[in-house]
Amino acid sequence: MTDRPKLAQGRTYLAIPGPSVTPDAVLSAMHRSAPNIYAGELPQMMPGLVADLKRVARTEHDVAMYIGNGHAAWEAALVNVCQPGDRVLVPATGRFGMGWSLVAQCLGLETEILDFGKQSPMDMDRIAEALKADTRHRIKAVLAVHVDTSTSIRNDIAALRGVLDTLGHPALLMADCIASMGCDRFEMDAWGADVAVTGSQKGLMMPPGMAFVFFNDRAAEARARMERVSWFWDWTPRAHPDEFFQYHGGTAPTHHLYGLRAALDLIHGEGLEQVWARHRVLARAVWAACEAWSTAGSFGMNVADPANRSCAVTALRLQSPQATELRTWLESELGLTLGIGLGMAEPGDPARDGFFRLGHMGHVNGHMIMGLLGGIEAGMRAMKIEHGTGALEAAAEVIGGA
Amino acid sequence: MTDRPKLAQGRTYLAIPGPSVTPDAVLSAMHRSAPNIYAGELPQMMPGLVADLKRVARTEHDVAMYIGNGHAAWEAALVNVCQPGDRVLVPATGRFGMGWSLVAQCLGLETEILDFGKQSPMDMDRIAEALKADTRHRIKAVLAVHVDTSTSIRNDIAALRGVLDTLGHPALLMADCIASMGCDRFEMDAWGADVAVTGSQKGLMMPPGMAFVFFNDRAAEARARMERVSWFWDWTPRAHPDEFFQYHGGTAPTHHLYGLRAALDLIHGEGLEQVWARHRVLARAVWAACEAWSTAGSFGMNVADPANRSCAVTALRLQSPQATELRTWLESELGLTLGIGLGMAEPGDPARDGFFRLGHMGHVNGHMIMGLLGGIEAGMRAMKIEHGTGALEAAAEVIGGA
Amino acid sequence: MTDRPKLAQGRTYLAIPGPSVTPDAVLSAMHRSAPNIYAGELPQMMPGLVADLKRVARTEHDVAMYIGNGHAAWEAALVNVCQPGDRVLVPATGRFGMGWSLVAQCLGLETEILDFGKQSPMDMDRIAEALKADTRHRIKAVLAVHVDTSTSIRNDIAALRGVLDTLGHPALLMADCIASMGCDRFEMDAWGADVAVTGSQKGLMMPPGMAFVFFNDRAAEARARMERVSWFWDWTPRAHPDEFFQYHGGTAPTHHLYGLRAALDLIHGEGLEQVWARHRVLARAVWAACEAWSTAGSFGMNVADPANRSCAVTALRLQSPQATELRTWLESELGLTLGIGLGMAEPGDPARDGFFRLGHMGHVNGHMIMGLLGGIEAGMRAMKIEHGTGALEAAAEVIGGA
Amino acid sequence: MTDRPKLAQGRTYLAIPGPSVTPDAVLSAMHRSAPNIYAGELPQMMPGLVADLKRVARTEHDVAMYIGNGHAAWEAALVNVCQPGDRVLVPATGRFGMGWSLVAQCLGLETEILDFGKQSPMDMDRIAEALKADTRHRIKAVLAVHVDTSTSIRNDIAALRGVLDTLGHPALLMADCIASMGCDRFEMDAWGADVAVTGSQKGLMMPPGMAFVFFNDRAAEARARMERVSWFWDWTPRAHPDEFFQYHGGTAPTHHLYGLRAALDLIHGEGLEQVWARHRVLARAVWAACEAWSTAGSFGMNVADPANRSCAVTALRLQSPQATELRTWLESELGLTLGIGLGMAEPGDPARDGFFRLGHMGHVNGHMIMGLLGGIEAGMRAMKIEHGTGALEAAAEVIGGA
Repeated sequence: MTDRPKLAQGRTYLAIPGPSVTPDAVLSAMHRSAPNIYAGELPQMMPGLVADLKRVARTEHDVAMYIGNGHAAWEAALVNVCQPGDRVLVPATGRFGMGWSLVAQCLGLETEILDFGKQSPMDMDRIAEALKADTRHRIKAVLAVHVDTSTSIRNDIAALRGVLDTLGHPALLMADCIASMGCDRFEMDAWGADVAVTGSQKGLMMPPGMAFVFFNDRAAEARARMERVSWFWDWTPRAHPDEFFQYHGGTAPTHHLYGLRAALDLIHGEGLEQVWARHRVLARAVWAACEAWSTAGSFGMNVADPANRSCAVTALRLQSPQATELRTWLESELGLTLGIGLGMAEPGDPARDGFFRLGHMGHVNGHMIMGLLGGIEAGMRAMKIEHGTGALEAAAEVIGGA
Repeated sequence: MTDRPKLAQGRTYLAIPGPSVTPDAVLSAMHRSAPNIYAGELPQMMPGLVADLKRVARTEHDVAMYIGNGHAAWEAALVNVCQPGDRVLVPATGRFGMGWSLVAQCLGLETEILDFGKQSPMDMDRIAEALKADTRHRIKAVLAVHVDTSTSIRNDIAALRGVLDTLGHPALLMADCIASMGCDRFEMDAWGADVAVTGSQKGLMMPPGMAFVFFNDRAAEARARMERVSWFWDWTPRAHPDEFFQYHGGTAPTHHLYGLRAALDLIHGEGLEQVWARHRVLARAVWAACEAWSTAGSFGMNVADPANRSCAVTALRLQSPQATELRTWLESELGLTLGIGLGMAEPGDPARDGFFRLGHMGHVNGHMIMGLLGGIEAGMRAMKIEHGTGALEAAAEVIGGA
Repeated sequence: MTDRPKLAQGRTYLAIPGPSVTPDAVLSAMHRSAPNIYAGELPQMMPGLVADLKRVARTEHDVAMYIGNGHAAWEAALVNVCQPGDRVLVPATGRFGMGWSLVAQCLGLETEILDFGKQSPMDMDRIAEALKADTRHRIKAVLAVHVDTSTSIRNDIAALRGVLDTLGHPALLMADCIASMGCDRFEMDAWGADVAVTGSQKGLMMPPGMAFVFFNDRAAEARARMERVSWFWDWTPRAHPDEFFQYHGGTAPTHHLYGLRAALDLIHGEGLEQVWARHRVLARAVWAACEAWSTAGSFGMNVADPANRSCAVTALRLQSPQATELRTWLESELGLTLGIGLGMAEPGDPARDGFFRLGHMGHVNGHMIMGLLGGIEAGMRAMKIEHGTGALEAAAEVIGGA
Repeated sequence: MTDRPKLAQGRTYLAIPGPSVTPDAVLSAMHRSAPNIYAGELPQMMPGLVADLKRVARTEHDVAMYIGNGHAAWEAALVNVCQPGDRVLVPATGRFGMGWSLVAQCLGLETEILDFGKQSPMDMDRIAEALKADTRHRIKAVLAVHVDTSTSIRNDIAALRGVLDTLGHPALLMADCIASMGCDRFEMDAWGADVAVTGSQKGLMMPPGMAFVFFNDRAAEARARMERVSWFWDWTPRAHPDEFFQYHGGTAPTHHLYGLRAALDLIHGEGLEQVWARHRVLARAVWAACEAWSTAGSFGMNVADPANRSCAVTALRLQSPQATELRTWLESELGLTLGIGLGMAEPGDPARDGFFRLGHMGHVNGHMIMGLLGGIEAGMRAMKIEHGTGALEAAAEVIGGA
C-alpha cells in the first residue's frame, strides 16, 4: 500500500457537530465591504430578521441577539433572571449540561445537578422529585439541554414543562437548543419553554459569532424583578431597541447580519417543517448504516433508542484507538473530517481515542451523507476495523425513500 | 438641475468612523467554509495571532480575545477587576467616555465622572485633584478614552500615567483604544497603561465582531484578588488557555480569526510605525482642507488644537441642518457616506443636523482621502453651503509630501 | 522627504482605460461553483441576457457572444462577411483603427487606410472621396472606431452612415464600440451601423474574456453570401441557436455569463440614458481639471475640441519623462494606477514617457473621479511638475452640478 | 411517498464531465478587482504560468493560450498548420472526434473520417491502412481524440505515433486532451504528439473560458510554411511574445489568469503523478460500483475493457427513459447532477433517455466519489431501477486501498 495515492484533493467536508458546513449563499452575503450602521439597508433589515428568527424557534415572544457563542448565550440567559445566590436545577445528559452549570457557578449561582449519565435522556421522575423537594421554590430556573452535542441525546422539553406544570413549580424552563434549532423539531411556545438559547454555527448554518436568546413574558417578568443587569447581557433593549445600536449593545455584527439574512432565507425558503423532515431522513440514513456496522466488531452507537437520538449529531464508539485512527485517516486521505468524542472520557484517558461523532446538521443533503458514510466504510476497510456489512445500502434505502 | 444625473454608481465609500473599509484580503480570507475547531490549521494559528496582536498594542503582556464589540470589551475589562460597590474614575471627553461609565454603573460600580466637555482633552490637574481627594484609594480604576470617536479628541495616556505615578495612586489605568489602535500611536507598556481595550472594526480593518482586552501583570494581580469572575468575561483562561476553546470561552469565531490573520499581515507587512505615519499624513491632509473651508461660512472643526486631534476621525460642524443635507446628498449622489454627529446634541435637538464626522482610519490611502475631500467640496457647492477656498489644493499639498 | 510614509495602503484604484473597475456585484456573481451546462438556470438565462445586451447597443437586431477579447470581436466581424481578397476601408484615428486593419490584413483582406492622425476625428469629406473613388464597390466594409482608446478621439458614426447613404455605397458600416459602449451614447439602429463590436471589460464592467458582435439584416445577408465561415467565428448559430452550446460555439463561459447578468442588471437598473449622462458629467469634471492644469507648464489634453472627446477615456501629455514618473509615483505612493500612453510614439522613442491616459469608464462615480484628480494634483506637486491651479475646484464645480 | 422530504438542500455536486467542480482556491483567486495589464504582477506571472502549464502537458516545447473553449482550441490548432483544401485524417471514437472534423470542414479542409463507433478505441491497423493509402502525403494532420468525453473511450496516442513513424508518414499528430489533461496520463513529448489541445474547465479545474494549444518544433515548422494565419489564432506571438498583450492576442483574460495560477499551484502542489494516480483509483472505484450494478437489470458500462476507459468520465446506459429519470430525481431530490448521454442516439430518438455519464475529473476526492455513487444507489432504489448489489462496498474497498 506504499504507493497508494492520497484521495483528499477535492472539496473538503467538515462533518463535525458544529460549526457546520457554511452555504455559499451565506459566504457570498458576507463578502462585502462594511455597511453604514446608522441608517439604510442594515437597520431596515432588522425587523425582518427578528421575525424570521422567531419563526425558527416557533415563538411569538422576544429574541435578543448577541455577538457571542453558545457560552455567551448561556451566560446571557442566566444573567437576566438570576443573581448570585440563586439556585438552578441542571438535569444533565452530557458535557454541555455540565458546562452550563459551570457557567452558572461562575456567576455565583447554586447549582443542583441531576446527572443522567451519557447514554440516557432525562428521567422526568427524578426531576419531579427534585422539584418537589424544593418546597421554598429556591430553584429559579431549570437548565435543560434539548440535544447534548457531546452525547447526541435528545431530551423531551415538552415533558419537562409538564412536570413543572403538574407540580406548579414557578422555575423558569430554559432550553439549550444550540445543537437542535433548525435541525430537530423545537416549538418554544407550544412546548412551554420560557427561555431558549442557540448559536449561529449549527442548524443556522452560519460562521460562529452570534448567539440568540429567546424569552417569553414570564422570563421578561423575572428580568423586571432584577435589581440590575449588565449592559452587555441585558436582553431588554436588545429585544425592544429604540435605536439600531441597541439591538447588539453597541456596534452591530454587520457581516454576520448579512449572513443571517441569507441563512434565514434558505431555511424559510425550504420551509421549517421540511428542514426538520430532511434532518430526520438523513439521520435515519446515518442510523441505518451505523446499526449495520454495529453487527460486528466494536462499532457502537451511543444512544440505543432512536426516540432519544438527535437528528443533528450522532455519537459513536469503536475500540480505542480506532476512532482516532479512523478520523486521522479520513481527513488525511479523503478530505473528510469527523468530530472527536467529547466528554466521554477524561483527558489523558486512552479510552478517548475510541469515541467519535458525526455532524449531520444544517446545510447537508443526500449525496453528502452518502459521501460521509461511504468515506467511513472505506476508512474502516483501510484501517482493517472489523464492522458489519450492508451499511451503505441500508442508508441508500432510507435516502431512496423506501 | 432637474436633469442632473446621479453620480453614485461605482464603488461606494464608507467614510464613517467605524466600521472602516474592509480590505479585500480580509474579505477573501473570511470567504471559506468552516474549519475544524479541534485540531489543524486554526488552533495552530493562535500563538501567532496573539503575538501579532500584542505587537499592535505595543505590549509584551497578555491579551484576551472576545467575540464581542467595543461595549463587550468595556464590560470585560471592568468585570475582571471590579466588583459591585467598587469605584472608578471617568475623565470623559465625549460620549464614549460617558458610555463606558454607564457600562460600569450597570455592573453596580460607583462612577466619578470628570466631564471635560466635547472640545477639550483631559485636564491632568483636575484628574490629579480627584485622585488626591481619594485618600482611601477607593478608586480601583481610571477609565480613560484615548480617542473619543464622538468628539475626535485625543488624550494623553502617558501623561495620565504620570499623574498616577506622581501621586502614588494604585488605581489601574485602563485605556479605551477602540478608535485609536492601529491609527494613532499607542504604546501600552511604555506609556504605562494597565489595561487597553479595542475592537476589530476600526484600525484593525475587520468586520465588527471581535474585541480585545490587553492587560499587564498589575491588572492580572487585581483579577487574582477577585472572588469570582463570570465564565465568559474571565480573561485568564483566554490569555492562558490549556485547550483551543478556552481562547474564546467556547466556540471560536472561526471566520473572524482568518480575517484577523489577514488584517495583521497587512499591518505588520506595512509596519506599525508606517501605519501610524500614514494615518498622520492623511489626517493632516484632512485638517488642511477643513481649515481652508473654515475660513468662510459656518464650517468648523470640533478640536481646535491639532495636538489634541485624532488621526483616525475628525468631528466637524456646519449650520444645522446643513451637515445632514450634505451627508444625504453625498450618499445619494456620489456614493460617499459620511458619519453622523454623535453626542454633540441631544436627540430631538435640531442642532444635531449641524454635526458630522469623517472616518479616515484603517484601509485608507491617498486617493481615497482626496476623493473624500473632493466629494465634500462638490457637495458643498451643490448644496450652496458657504465655505472657504483652496481646501483641495491644500490637502493635495500635504499628500504630495511637500 | 526621506521620512515621508507611503500613502498607498487602502483600496487600489485602477484608472486605466480598460479593464475597468469590476463591481462587487459582478465578482460575487462569478464566485460560484460551475453550473450545469445542459439544463437549468444557465440556459434559461440566455434569452434575457441577449435582450438586455441588445438594449445596451440600442439594436433590435442580432448579437453573437464570443469567448474572446476585442481582437476576437474584430476578427469575428470580418470573418463573417469578408473573404481573402476583399477590400475594407479603414478611417483611422488612433492605434486601434490601425490594429483592426492589421487583423484584416492577416485574414488576407486588402485594407485602404485613411489616417487622420492622433488628434482629430474622421474627416467625412475624405471618406466620401475614398468611397466615391471605389466605383466598382470593391470596398465591402468600412471599419470605423467609435472611440479610439489610444487617442480618446470620439468619431461620429451617424455622420459616416450619412456619407454612405448619400453616395449609395453598399459597404457595411462596422463600428468598434469597445471603448464606448455603456459609456458614450451609441445607437446602433438609429445611427445605421450594420455591425457593432465590443468587449466585456470596459463599459460593461466585467473581467476581460467575452466579446460581442451585433449585426443587422444587411450584415446577415452578407454572411449568407459567404461560401463558408469558420465554426468558431460563425455568428449565425450563436445568434440563432437550436441548443445552448451553440450560443458560444461549444462550452459556455459559465462564470462570465453570471457576471454579465449582474453587470446588465446594474446598467439597466441605473438606466442606459442615466449611465451615459453620468459618464458625460464625470468626463466634464475630468476635462475641467485638465483644462485648468493646462494653463501652465506642459500639461495638455490630446483632443482639443470637447465635441470630439470620449466620455470614457482621456489622453494627456506632459514633458517626457514626467508622465511616466507621475504614473509610477501615484501607483507606488497612493495606490492609484493611471494608463500608459499608447500609440503616441514608437517603442524606444523617449517621447513615450510624456503620454498617459485616464480611464473613467464603467463603475465610476463622483468621489472616485475626485480621488483620481486629487491624486494627480498631489502627484504633480510631489514630482514638482508645473501645472495650472484651480483644477480640483473646477472639477468639484462640475460634479456639484452647477 | 408523497410526504417524503426533499434531501437536496446542501452543497450541490456537479458530477458532469465538465465543467468540473471549481476549487475554492480558484474562485477566491478570481474574486478581485481588475489588475493593470501593462505592468506589475500579472505580466510578471506569465513565464511561471507558461512553465507550469507545459509541465502539465509534459512538454518542453511551446504553448499558446487562448481566450476560448475546446472548439476554439480545435480551430486554433488547425488554422496554424492547414489551409483550405488540405486533408486531415480523423480516427473518431465518439462525438468529439466527429466535432473536430466538422470544425475542419468549416475551414475548408478535406476530412477523411475513420469511424470506430462508440464503444471501441481506435484500431491502429485501420489507421495504418489509411495512411499507407495516402501515398502523396496529402494528409497534413491526424486529429486524434485522446479521451472522447461522449463515449469515455481512451485512445493510445503513443501507439498512433508508432504507426506514423513506422510508415514514415509526415502528417502532424494532433491530440485532443480536453477531457484527459490533468486526469489521465498524457506525455506529449515522450509520446510524440506534435500538437496537443485542452481547455480550462476539466482537469485544469477552472471555469470555462481558456484554451491551450501546445505545439512542438515540427508543428512550428508547419506554421512557418503557411502563407498567412489569422491574427487571433496565430500561435507564434502567443508562444513568443515581445509584449504582454501578445500572449492573448489583445486584452488578457485577467481573472482567468489568476485562477489558472491557483489551479496550477494545486496540481503541482499535489504532484502530477499523484494527480493521475488519484484519478485512477477514483475511476477504479466508480468502475467497481458500475460493474456490480451491471450484474442485474439493464445497467451497463459503455466501454467494456478497463484498458480503454477514461479515468475522468464514465459513459453508462440504462433502459430508456430510466437514465433521464434517475438524473432528474438526483438533481431535484439530492442536489446531485449527473451528465446527460451525448452522441449515443440522435436528437428525437427516445433511446437518448437511456444514456448518462459521470464526471470524476479534477477537484474530486474519496468522499465525493462515495457520495456520487451512494446517491446513484439511492436514486435507483427510489426509481425502482433493477440493479446488482454490493456496488458501494466494492467502491469503498477500492477507495480503502485494498
